[in-house]
Amino acid sequence: MATTEEDWLVSLRRELHRRPEPAWREFYTTARIVEELRELPVDEVLLGPEMLAGDHRLAVPDESTLDSWLQQAREYDLDQEVLEELAGGYTGAMAVLRRGEGPTIGLRVDIDGLPQEESEDDDHYPVEEGFRSTHDGHMHACGHDGHATIGLGVLRAIADSDFRGTLKVFFQPAEEIVGGGKAVAEGGHLDDLDALVGIHLGLDHPTGEIVAGVDGFLAVSHFNAEFEGEPAHAGGHPEQGRNAVQAMATAVQNLYAIPRHDDGATRINAGKVGGGTASNIIPEEAFIEGEVRGETTELMEYTREKAVTVLESAAAMHDCEVTVTGGGEAPSATSDEAVVEQVASAAEGVPGVRNIVRRDDLGGSEDATYLMQRVQDNGGIAGFVGIGTDHPGGHHTSTFDVDEESLRIGVDVVSGAIQRLATNLQNQN
Amino acid sequence: MATTEEDWLVSLRRELHRRPEPAWREFYTTARIVEELRELPVDEVLLGPEMLAGDHRLAVPDESTLDSWLQQAREYDLDQEVLEELAGGYTGAMAVLRRGEGPTIGLRVDIDGLPQEESEDDDHYPVEEGFRSTHDGHMHACGHDGHATIGLGVLRAIADSDFRGTLKVFFQPAEEIVGGGKAVAEGGHLDDLDALVGIHLGLDHPTGEIVAGVDGFLAVSHFNAEFEGEPAHAGGHPEQGRNAVQAMATAVQNLYAIPRHDDGATRINAGKVGGGTASNIIPEEAFIEGEVRGETTELMEYTREKAVTVLESAAAMHDCEVTVTGGGEAPSATSDEAVVEQVASAAEGVPGVRNIVRRDDLGGSEDATYLMQRVQDNGGIAGFVGIGTDHPGGHHTSTFDVDEESLRIGVDVVSGAIQRLATNLQNQN
Amino acid sequence: MATTEEDWLVSLRRELHRRPEPAWREFYTTARIVEELRELPVDEVLLGPEMLAGDHRLAVPDESTLDSWLQQAREYDLDQEVLEELAGGYTGAMAVLRRGEGPTIGLRVDIDGLPQEESEDDDHYPVEEGFRSTHDGHMHACGHDGHATIGLGVLRAIADSDFRGTLKVFFQPAEEIVGGGKAVAEGGHLDDLDALVGIHLGLDHPTGEIVAGVDGFLAVSHFNAEFEGEPAHAGGHPEQGRNAVQAMATAVQNLYAIPRHDDGATRINAGKVGGGTASNIIPEEAFIEGEVRGETTELMEYTREKAVTVLESAAAMHDCEVTVTGGGEAPSATSDEAVVEQVASAAEGVPGVRNIVRRDDLGGSEDATYLMQRVQDNGGIAGFVGIGTDHPGGHHTSTFDVDEESLRIGVDVVSGAIQRLATNLQNQN
Amino acid sequence: MATTEEDWLVSLRRELHRRPEPAWREFYTTARIVEELRELPVDEVLLGPEMLAGDHRLAVPDESTLDSWLQQAREYDLDQEVLEELAGGYTGAMAVLRRGEGPTIGLRVDIDGLPQEESEDDDHYPVEEGFRSTHDGHMHACGHDGHATIGLGVLRAIADSDFRGTLKVFFQPAEEIVGGGKAVAEGGHLDDLDALVGIHLGLDHPTGEIVAGVDGFLAVSHFNAEFEGEPAHAGGHPEQGRNAVQAMATAVQNLYAIPRHDDGATRINAGKVGGGTASNIIPEEAFIEGEVRGETTELMEYTREKAVTVLESAAAMHDCEVTVTGGGEAPSATSDEAVVEQVASAAEGVPGVRNIVRRDDLGGSEDATYLMQRVQDNGGIAGFVGIGTDHPGGHHTSTFDVDEESLRIGVDVVSGAIQRLATNLQNQN
Repeated sequence: MATTEEDWLVSLRRELHRRPEPAWREFYTTARIVEELRELPVDEVLLGPEMLAGDHRLAVPDESTLDSWLQQAREYDLDQEVLEELAGGYTGAMAVLRRGEGPTIGLRVDIDGLPQEESEDDDHYPVEEGFRSTHDGHMHACGHDGHATIGLGVLRAIADSDFRGTLKVFFQPAEEIVGGGKAVAEGGHLDDLDALVGIHLGLDHPTGEIVAGVDGFLAVSHFNAEFEGEPAHAGGHPEQGRNAVQAMATAVQNLYAIPRHDDGATRINAGKVGGGTASNIIPEEAFIEGEVRGETTELMEYTREKAVTVLESAAAMHDCEVTVTGGGEAPSATSDEAVVEQVASAAEGVPGVRNIVRRDDLGGSEDATYLMQRVQDNGGIAGFVGIGTDHPGGHHTSTFDVDEESLRIGVDVVSGAIQRLATNLQNQN
Repeated sequence: MATTEEDWLVSLRRELHRRPEPAWREFYTTARIVEELRELPVDEVLLGPEMLAGDHRLAVPDESTLDSWLQQAREYDLDQEVLEELAGGYTGAMAVLRRGEGPTIGLRVDIDGLPQEESEDDDHYPVEEGFRSTHDGHMHACGHDGHATIGLGVLRAIADSDFRGTLKVFFQPAEEIVGGGKAVAEGGHLDDLDALVGIHLGLDHPTGEIVAGVDGFLAVSHFNAEFEGEPAHAGGHPEQGRNAVQAMATAVQNLYAIPRHDDGATRINAGKVGGGTASNIIPEEAFIEGEVRGETTELMEYTREKAVTVLESAAAMHDCEVTVTGGGEAPSATSDEAVVEQVASAAEGVPGVRNIVRRDDLGGSEDATYLMQRVQDNGGIAGFVGIGTDHPGGHHTSTFDVDEESLRIGVDVVSGAIQRLATNLQNQN
Repeated sequence: MATTEEDWLVSLRRELHRRPEPAWREFYTTARIVEELRELPVDEVLLGPEMLAGDHRLAVPDESTLDSWLQQAREYDLDQEVLEELAGGYTGAMAVLRRGEGPTIGLRVDIDGLPQEESEDDDHYPVEEGFRSTHDGHMHACGHDGHATIGLGVLRAIADSDFRGTLKVFFQPAEEIVGGGKAVAEGGHLDDLDALVGIHLGLDHPTGEIVAGVDGFLAVSHFNAEFEGEPAHAGGHPEQGRNAVQAMATAVQNLYAIPRHDDGATRINAGKVGGGTASNIIPEEAFIEGEVRGETTELMEYTREKAVTVLESAAAMHDCEVTVTGGGEAPSATSDEAVVEQVASAAEGVPGVRNIVRRDDLGGSEDATYLMQRVQDNGGIAGFVGIGTDHPGGHHTSTFDVDEESLRIGVDVVSGAIQRLATNLQNQN
Repeated sequence: MATTEEDWLVSLRRELHRRPEPAWREFYTTARIVEELRELPVDEVLLGPEMLAGDHRLAVPDESTLDSWLQQAREYDLDQEVLEELAGGYTGAMAVLRRGEGPTIGLRVDIDGLPQEESEDDDHYPVEEGFRSTHDGHMHACGHDGHATIGLGVLRAIADSDFRGTLKVFFQPAEEIVGGGKAVAEGGHLDDLDALVGIHLGLDHPTGEIVAGVDGFLAVSHFNAEFEGEPAHAGGHPEQGRNAVQAMATAVQNLYAIPRHDDGATRINAGKVGGGTASNIIPEEAFIEGEVRGETTELMEYTREKAVTVLESAAAMHDCEVTVTGGGEAPSATSDEAVVEQVASAAEGVPGVRNIVRRDDLGGSEDATYLMQRVQDNGGIAGFVGIGTDHPGGHHTSTFDVDEESLRIGVDVVSGAIQRLATNLQNQN
């Protein structure tokens, strides 16, 4: 890759970094990607409404939240028509590159930012270089600015290569809340794929290290429990209350105490809770935003079922009602050896790659698994690649940053792997 | 009382009702009262800084909150110099009327509103008559607009009477959060009182009913517990977290389970709680805003001590820290028979009074008790009077309102009682 | 009362003290009382089966427990036919003394001991005087040996007096588990009473002090909750268990946290709990033996209803079943002024009485209230009398003892009161 | 193996089955094994006091419990001198067979029974064949009767073989409470071992299946927490109690809620709990007998540390004291490949072996791990072998039984493996 290409990657990434948008609100980000796609020799560009199965979008924010972010995006110098298409939280895009006969290969990158204030420290690189987030309280603290950039870089690299076949790049919204994967998987555009590659920067691997196959995705399911009781004056008539905070607290204690499972790891978290209005009122309302996870989808479902029982019984105990609604969700998945092999081979020749880890566990969740599972269910192969990058702060913290050298390495490894996969799959037929 | 006086009471009350201000933010309210006092033949007017022992103000909001309310008050047509004196949350005022030799008698009225949205129903009287609150999300939902009005009315009535002695009327801020009583009690202006009368409208008694002695004040103490742990990725490293929400939930369960006490009623409420930031992060922070009460001050203190133990142990259990800070507070108190008797006698002659209840229990808390206790500790007598008023909605609800006839009844009963007390105390010497 | 009578009281009490029997197992005690009754000029003696409504006996132990105590009683020198009548837990007796025309007055005394090991200290008076309990692990630690003795003494005193009317003395079993009162109340023998007197020794009042009217009986209801889940190997398959101990612990936490009630005092206690079999087995079974109380019967019922909800929800939360069965029970009650007055008058003339307290609160529970309520519901009057006695250890502790002087005082006060009541009631007609 | 030998195994096993003895009380069992050893051509027999490091015995019962079991053993026809040596819970034995130059190899078998009532069903094989347990409430429900038998069978088989080297067979007491392993490991007799083999029957593998290497031992630690508070009358003075059951229940809830760990599986169980004395007394005492486990020793220790914090904070919360004492304990361990290989090879030639599983996870705990670790730490090799046996009921249930054919298979596989290990180790030198 030429230096000018590397500059292009860096400059693109910084632009995206400056304007992070959280899940389902990637209006600017999508439009900016589309702008770039139009400069590339791609054959087709689909926007969110065409790419996603709208009904399968999970955990979409309410209209007014969506609107205020759309409004902000409108103020940037962008194709306003594109923005209008995305309205209502139909963000994300997909590009198709057709290069004659050959297998169809997908690349999935995610594009959303996080509700995390970015560090203002002078030695935080984005501060130093002047591309710190300008969206207050939001930040690309998980490298998705880099992912989107690599997606574009791979399209460009493949367009310039002798690749034969079709490449589809999915710029997926709402990964951070595991909300977008299902809608992409159900969108229909994966069904002709012979192979799918997903990527992630960092994951505690340094620049120059490549994990050819990431496994150990925890299946995950978010839930939101709303308890409703009855208020009463806490001094005058405590007996007239139906205390939603007591119900919530009882639930929290028992959620964490759901029995461990012999088949593997489970997780549970009551990550955000609240309730009540004033110290002298018996609390009428309370909520828990939580999640369950499992080493397998079954283990996650075991935990979810137990969690619902706990929530309902805790409400009943305090004579309250509870409504439990689902949020984002993702299954477990495993990288196919056939993909891992090609990634490892491709990585070998890439300048700057100093270490290739064959397989490693994520230990977290990712809704790329919906896409991987879909492709695998249809007889295709799928893999998830870790692209090491020195990151000063941990993922999801205010000082997270990516080493920009890893953008170029990522493009090289992934485009190399895609070419090898194409050749290999072609030879199999 | 002449009709014009009654009109004045009604019109004054409506003005105050239109602009409710919550605890320690009664800037407009105080300045408006002062404006009115300057029209009356009072001998001295003291503002908050002179009336209150500043260090004993409880649960004062932060500077920026105070400032935004002060800013709002500045936009009304008021004496700006008065407002500047109140800055920083030194609200409230006090008026002294000197009428020669005789006992010194105090009247205490409270003046703050509540963070409660007022009803917009067409048949809500303040809507109908056009004096609904113009301060969004705030309301005089406990009748303190009427209390302040009665305070002014009593001053006017006593000034017109043949009362001999000194009358001090305390317009106390921050009763709703039991935050102002202590500062007034410690302010030094109660120490020469021979008798003190406090009042409250409503309390489920209809217009025309007078409770000559209110008792059964629950001693109360607010607390705020802030738990601090350590965040961690809930999927990747749950063991690295120190879960503040688990600590909080454990505390809530055990707070409500503090042993009942044989000496009398106790109360505990974790009225407002919260914690955590996202479903996939082990919660780093959590809080409980709560209160304890007791039929006596000792019972409240017993419960408070237990509560602190629960909060600290719950934090320790989950390897978190907790900081427990006190908030508003009020002791218990009892109305002296010598006051009850004079109130009952005075009420007998007042037009519109249809029923006199000698004593009744409040069943809640009131920081008038700090003032009552102070006077009683100095050898004086004190009493608290309930002035019935038909109120369509309950106290602290959006449809609360007072029957304006009760304003005039209140002024007549209280000024009558003050005159009788003065005569009576004089005769004792 | 002559000295020989006093000796008789003391010697009788010591005999009973030596052989305490717990609730529904008062086989020896009843037979020994009957033996004594046969020496007195009483007109009728009824045994348990005739006195009690058998179906209303509460918390009767199982057959084998009853049998082993009956077996023990058979070894004493007693009328074996009497013992056979009591078999199955139909203990207790009733004596009727008819002295011509006049009102019918009842006296209720209770006769059961406690499962409490008696002190072996040399300075424990029963040890010193050689009448310590010979029934291992059981003890008259609440003075019912004295109550039974006073019951017999009053019969003898009234027989010797000029009393006109009918006296019924009820020797009630199973007070300690509030199990016998209901069965006596429903037995039919109270329905012709014009007045009823109950008594208790001690209650923290010293020898020479008489409480003419005891009030403040807390209504009480015992319950037994049995949780059933499913065991599993705690290491190998924790997910296969349904953990009865988790259910029980959740219930305990929430039972104590049942909201306090504005109408008055409530109590709750999970007094005895257990569960599980071994540290490596997920517990299959657990239990709570508990109780709820209330200042009124309604308050007890409020608490009981909440408790059942807690128990059932805690079971559901952990996928367990729970069976909640009731145990002993007693309502609240109040002593009638007409009784209190006669007791106070009678006490005045009794040698050794140094202080008469008109009314005092029990602060505990007593199933004499069933009897009192029954009589009051039928238009009669009822009262409960406290007979002070110096007791070195507290009630229900191993060093409890009664000052034997109080036996004579008790007989004098109660027989005096019964005579006055008879006269008084007669005069009313 | 000849039929008479097989008969001998079966008959021996049935004798032991008839008289199961729980941990540290294997008086009869040890003496009976010694009797048998004396019939075999072994070179040395050591009893418990010589074999064990007495101070490292864990969870030894109290004297009176030990005595009553010793008393029972004395009534059997056994060498009384042997029994006297075992007094005080120094049970177990060890036999040494010396066959010239060569490696020293150990075999560890455990010998204790369980506190489990054996089934009386007619179709329970021990009932049918007349060797059901005669020790009420106790049973060989985990096959240790078979283990001891196999240990003796192996000694006999090796004695008859051309084995060169030294064989030590350890008949270990108190495995069921993970109490004996540490004392054997610290006893000094393992320190010259070149290899160690441990065995277990069943583990859900059928007759004819051999697991050449059992792994997945969960490290385990038992604990006993005793809470002490203060009693009080639950009706009269609930505030005077310090409620040990509330402390215990709070602990139970929070123990199960100890955070899961990313490094692997953890377990926690409050397996047996209790507290309080009567429904009307605030509970003074309560206890938890529990355990923590981990996939590694570190994970177990993580959980134990958290558990202690929970227990201590729960006590502090309710103003109680808690004493936490350790019980049985065992680390994790892994079978060395060098052992697994020889066991698998040996199993291949054994009649009746139908399936050889190379490695499988135990999913439970075993204090053979102390011995394995000791040998491995000293540079030796160690392995644990699963000998399949059809068992109608699960381990630790009343209908557990072993298929007696597996005794012979076990002897053949283990003695074959020991010979191969000896040859192999010899060749390495």
